[in-house]
Amino acid sequence: MGFEILKEKVCAANKEIGRTGLAILTWGNASEADRAAGVFAIKPSGVDYDALTPEDIVIVSLDTGEKVEGELNPSSDTPSHWHLYRVFPTIGGIVHTHSTKATAWAQAKKNIPAFGTTHADYFYGPVPCTRELTQAEVEGEYELNTGKVIEEHFVRHGIEPIQMPAVLVACHGPFVWGADAASAVECGITLEEVAGMALNSLVLNPALAAMEPYLLDKHFLRKHGASAYYGQNERGEKQ
Amino acid sequence: MGFEILKEKVCAANKEIGRTGLAILTWGNASEADRAAGVFAIKPSGVDYDALTPEDIVIVSLDTGEKVEGELNPSSDTPSHWHLYRVFPTIGGIVHTHSTKATAWAQAKKNIPAFGTTHADYFYGPVPCTRELTQAEVEGEYELNTGKVIEEHFVRHGIEPIQMPAVLVACHGPFVWGADAASAVECGITLEEVAGMALNSLVLNPALAAMEPYLLDKHFLRKHGASAYYGQNERGEKQ
Amino acid sequence: MGFEILKEKVCAANKEIGRTGLAILTWGNASEADRAAGVFAIKPSGVDYDALTPEDIVIVSLDTGEKVEGELNPSSDTPSHWHLYRVFPTIGGIVHTHSTKATAWAQAKKNIPAFGTTHADYFYGPVPCTRELTQAEVEGEYELNTGKVIEEHFVRHGIEPIQMPAVLVACHGPFVWGADAASAVECGITLEEVAGMALNSLVLNPALAAMEPYLLDKHFLRKHGASAYYGQNERGEKQ
Amino acid sequence: MGFEILKEKVCAANKEIGRTGLAILTWGNASEADRAAGVFAIKPSGVDYDALTPEDIVIVSLDTGEKVEGELNPSSDTPSHWHLYRVFPTIGGIVHTHSTKATAWAQAKKNIPAFGTTHADYFYGPVPCTRELTQAEVEGEYELNTGKVIEEHFVRHGIEPIQMPAVLVACHGPFVWGADAASAVECGITLEEVAGMALNSLVLNPALAAMEPYLLDKHFLRKHGASAYYGQNERGEKQ
Repeated sequence: MGFEILKEKVCAANKEIGRTGLAILTWGNASEADRAAGVFAIKPSGVDYDALTPEDIVIVSLDTGEKVEGELNPSSDTPSHWHLYRVFPTIGGIVHTHSTKATAWAQAKKNIPAFGTTHADYFYGPVPCTRELTQAEVEGEYELNTGKVIEEHFVRHGIEPIQMPAVLVACHGPFVWGADAASAVECGITLEEVAGMALNSLVLNPALAAMEPYLLDKHFLRKHGASAYYGQNERGEKQ
Repeated sequence: MGFEILKEKVCAANKEIGRTGLAILTWGNASEADRAAGVFAIKPSGVDYDALTPEDIVIVSLDTGEKVEGELNPSSDTPSHWHLYRVFPTIGGIVHTHSTKATAWAQAKKNIPAFGTTHADYFYGPVPCTRELTQAEVEGEYELNTGKVIEEHFVRHGIEPIQMPAVLVACHGPFVWGADAASAVECGITLEEVAGMALNSLVLNPALAAMEPYLLDKHFLRKHGASAYYGQNERGEKQ
Repeated sequence: MGFEILKEKVCAANKEIGRTGLAILTWGNASEADRAAGVFAIKPSGVDYDALTPEDIVIVSLDTGEKVEGELNPSSDTPSHWHLYRVFPTIGGIVHTHSTKATAWAQAKKNIPAFGTTHADYFYGPVPCTRELTQAEVEGEYELNTGKVIEEHFVRHGIEPIQMPAVLVACHGPFVWGADAASAVECGITLEEVAGMALNSLVLNPALAAMEPYLLDKHFLRKHGASAYYGQNERGEKQ
Repeated sequence: MGFEILKEKVCAANKEIGRTGLAILTWGNASEADRAAGVFAIKPSGVDYDALTPEDIVIVSLDTGEKVEGELNPSSDTPSHWHLYRVFPTIGGIVHTHSTKATAWAQAKKNIPAFGTTHADYFYGPVPCTRELTQAEVEGEYELNTGKVIEEHFVRHGIEPIQMPAVLVACHGPFVWGADAASAVECGITLEEVAGMALNSLVLNPALAAMEPYLLDKHFLRKHGASAYYGQNERGEKQ
């Protein structure tokens, strides 16, 4: 029924999760939306990254959250992805993993403070950690409620998803996003690296405060603002 | 005399221990039981994972604990495996390693608390650490007594081996198990990852308490309970 | 227009940054100066290490800091490299990365003390961490001012760049240098290793003091002084 | 002039140091003695592990410590190796590295306590850390005095080199040994792993005491005593 290119992109992004060690075993999934077509494509549940083929990728309706194409079950985290696509209309790809260092912060129920420019190049402020889900939320539509708790945090704190493409779900792990599945994977790699750096910085200096706001502004806006000048977008022909 | 398939599975599981870094040098062994045949197959002692072939795997009687087939000495940990197969009739594969982070917890003589869903997906509560063996236990049938101390801990605390497929032997290291040798290896990989995450979470928050019981229930039972819905077991055709 | 050999060396040094893990994604850049020709060659901005070819390398004037050859944008860090080449006339290659452990120290805004001979073989004293840039410095010519803050630290503390081929820019990350791009990469690898060792030594002994000056002298001068006797430079034919 | 087999063994052991990550760059060296021939073979100084060939290996007299064969300079650590071969007549191979975790302990100037069976399988008690060398020792025959300080520690504390095949030189790094160069490399790998485990165990339990002496005895003597029963030495045909 189509979606071949979307399935190939999502298959490649999921394999990249495995190849880079963002997820071991089958502990992570990537998805990407085709908003014009009203669908998103996501990894099937419990399939090894090495064995994954584009044909295995499941197509889900952005409207209903139900599978519209594919023989396998979609990831059990599909309702979380679905909710985020609906409430964050600016995002086009999502990755969820249990990456080692980011998950350690999620388990500790702490925001990752912005300690340096590595962080500021991708995340415009501390990477937030949500509240824990209530018993009713966990025992109800758990995966959907996971998406709702993320939404609640961003709304309550006035955070723009495009400026903060990552969140830690308390006692669980990270969700990251971007323009497409590939950029969400890049964001997940960055989050994991930043999480490890911040942990070590705190070991070296337990009283460490966040970086200066003007340096945060400079680095985030150098890559993401209207006057970004990093990479080859303006004058160069490449990347 | 047969057991070719069993030997191949156990050879592959032991090689996986080496390949994934769960054990360096020859510091780990995997076994799998064929309960109908009344035997289990186990790695020979001191043989490198790369050099290991199915013919090297040793067959041991579940009844007597004695070698019934194979030219090489079985792993020196064979009596520990044997005892666990006898007292935990629901398990079909066992892995023992000195994996880095899990062993650090075993040396610290501490249970690994359940801090998040990564843990809860596999382990239904804190991963227990046994008491230390007494001098008499160490100087007597040491490897058999190692199995007995594990049994004692599970009986005394009313822990079901199928709900807690891992244990830390104090001052020694982890034993993990599952339906077969391959799933025991997966459990060992998970334990190692969870051990590292928990260590880092404690560095970030030394007063951290265990996760909510309702979240532990949700995640463990989502994958292991009668109404599990993770993977492709219900509706999909794959894995 | 020439510079083929220079471009090949700089391309190889940048690929080495990726291959050794000093930088993930595109988070690092290497440059090398040809002082006789009045130029330096540097990585283009935002290009993957795997995809990089010698033709992509950008040639920049040592006199003006402007691009003199190449189709792509030079690294956004080019003004930092340029300034260091101008104020440190003894250096021939520069590497900037966000390597994991060194960046953790930069974020913690701490010098890396000289705790042992691994450190002393390359760095003649503590690896310094600069002050943070002011708001005016960040909002002005930021990358140029980064170079100026490094220069300020070395001048103020009387540090010789040839004896201390590394610096941590506070809240940012390391810059390292050497006779050429390849030796700057080696210096970056060493700094990362030394940063991790020093972190762990402090965890083991939080009150740890720096090594004895006479041991620091011995190791640094054994490899770098007029009477160096390490390697094959004096009597051997190789390396 | 011969020594082909000895050179091949020493070349292979040095390459193994690089391959396993015990040393990065050229930061480690392996040697092996042929006591009947009155020589030992050692890595040349500053040569990359990948480029190393058996012909590069240098032959040194056990009697005089002088080079007797080879075109290249021997490792600058040659006098340390030489002294250890002379004062520890039971050893046949030596490895010196700056491996990451063991060096962190050496820099912290602390013994590595025996916390578990991984340690006890190789090291019969805490891995000792020497005193720091005096200024006179450093400014005199430094590498020879490094060997002498190791000897002094073992003599003063009545430690048998065959029961404790490792030492940390304060503010420097580990030396390990064994029956030959290959077993010294294995000892170095083990020391590095044990050093990391012990560090993490102390983070989890800062007041942790050493393991029980009867468990230390059991594990060390199970592999190394007169009644060792690990491996295939007694009854099996392999390894």
